[in-house]
Amino acid sequence: MKAALSIMIFDENRIRASIIEEGLREAGHDQVVVLNDIVGLARQIEVISPDVIVIDIETPNRDMLEHLFQLTRSVRKPIAMFVDRSDSSSIEAAVEAGVSAYVVDGLKKERVKPILDMAVSRFKAFSRLQQELADAKSALEERKIIERAKGILMKSRKLSEDEAYALLRQTAMNEKKKLADIAQSVVMAAAILGS
Amino acid sequence: MKAALSIMIFDENRIRASIIEEGLREAGHDQVVVLNDIVGLARQIEVISPDVIVIDIETPNRDMLEHLFQLTRSVRKPIAMFVDRSDSSSIEAAVEAGVSAYVVDGLKKERVKPILDMAVSRFKAFSRLQQELADAKSALEERKIIERAKGILMKSRKLSEDEAYALLRQTAMNEKKKLADIAQSVVMAAAILGS
Repeated sequence: MKAALSIMIFDENRIRASIIEEGLREAGHDQVVVLNDIVGLARQIEVISPDVIVIDIETPNRDMLEHLFQLTRSVRKPIAMFVDRSDSSSIEAAVEAGVSAYVVDGLKKERVKPILDMAVSRFKAFSRLQQELADAKSALEERKIIERAKGILMKSRKLSEDEAYALLRQTAMNEKKKLADIAQSVVMAAAILGS
Repeated sequence: MKAALSIMIFDENRIRASIIEEGLREAGHDQVVVLNDIVGLARQIEVISPDVIVIDIETPNRDMLEHLFQLTRSVRKPIAMFVDRSDSSSIEAAVEAGVSAYVVDGLKKERVKPILDMAVSRFKAFSRLQQELADAKSALEERKIIERAKGILMKSRKLSEDEAYALLRQTAMNEKKKLADIAQSVVMAAAILGS
């Protein structure tokens, strides 16, 4: 499974890029692409769609970091990043920008593989939590919209709560749609019809 | 603010402990406690209640790691951990056990401070997400219980939905309690009374 991970390395410095590449190859990763130019990086990530991204910048300046963090924020993949020095605020910014492993002053061939593993594990744990949050939020939203639809039906069709719910449910089954979608239609229709 | 962070170091190796301690002191952290014995570590964490914990184990064995991960799972604090070698499964276990920074083969005086910063940032980001999830879940639970209470009142007191809600709300205001707590009491009472 691990050997099948496709990895993209971005590094403007070819020597450092080859250290990373070697570290990965020695650890059994053979699907490695190296990019040396930041121009078109976002596009290349889209085209190649690697499983993991390794970014190395020897001496990061604020502009470059900001540019990269903009990228890492939008790319939903495990990202390991090596920099040679960093202040606390850049470290915080890296975490906020979704960088799964941000390694300050720690580039060494033998360390690339464990850092990659770490980035993947951390990305998974964080994504799982984000997914759970999204699920909980959408369950709440669905419940709210179903409530509202029930209220509308109770009032406009003089139904009891149970009857209103049964009507929504029956309609969802007939239409082969989700209860929340039917509820959404009811709420929208009521707004348009002014009922 | 940073200088006021209280830090606990656990390291059975006194030489490595002093490397970490020095790295922290040179970075301006002067509230540092060093523990060399794993016996009583959990108790010491409770008593001292440090802001951050740094754990270093030169050559971790499975038993020791498991013991420490049990600890890190229950301690809700930023934890940075240094080990000299690790396999992918231990890395994954560390992430699962709430270790905010797990550094394999990377102990160096100058790196202690950025790793500590990283652990704190990552802990904050993860905690925030966990809190959001807890809030979303409890909002959903509250909504469910309020629903059920409303349904009970509508049936037993022959109220409309709006009236049932108004009654719950009024009671909450009179009792100076949360709406969800009143709803919880209604549901419980109905179960006891069999109404």
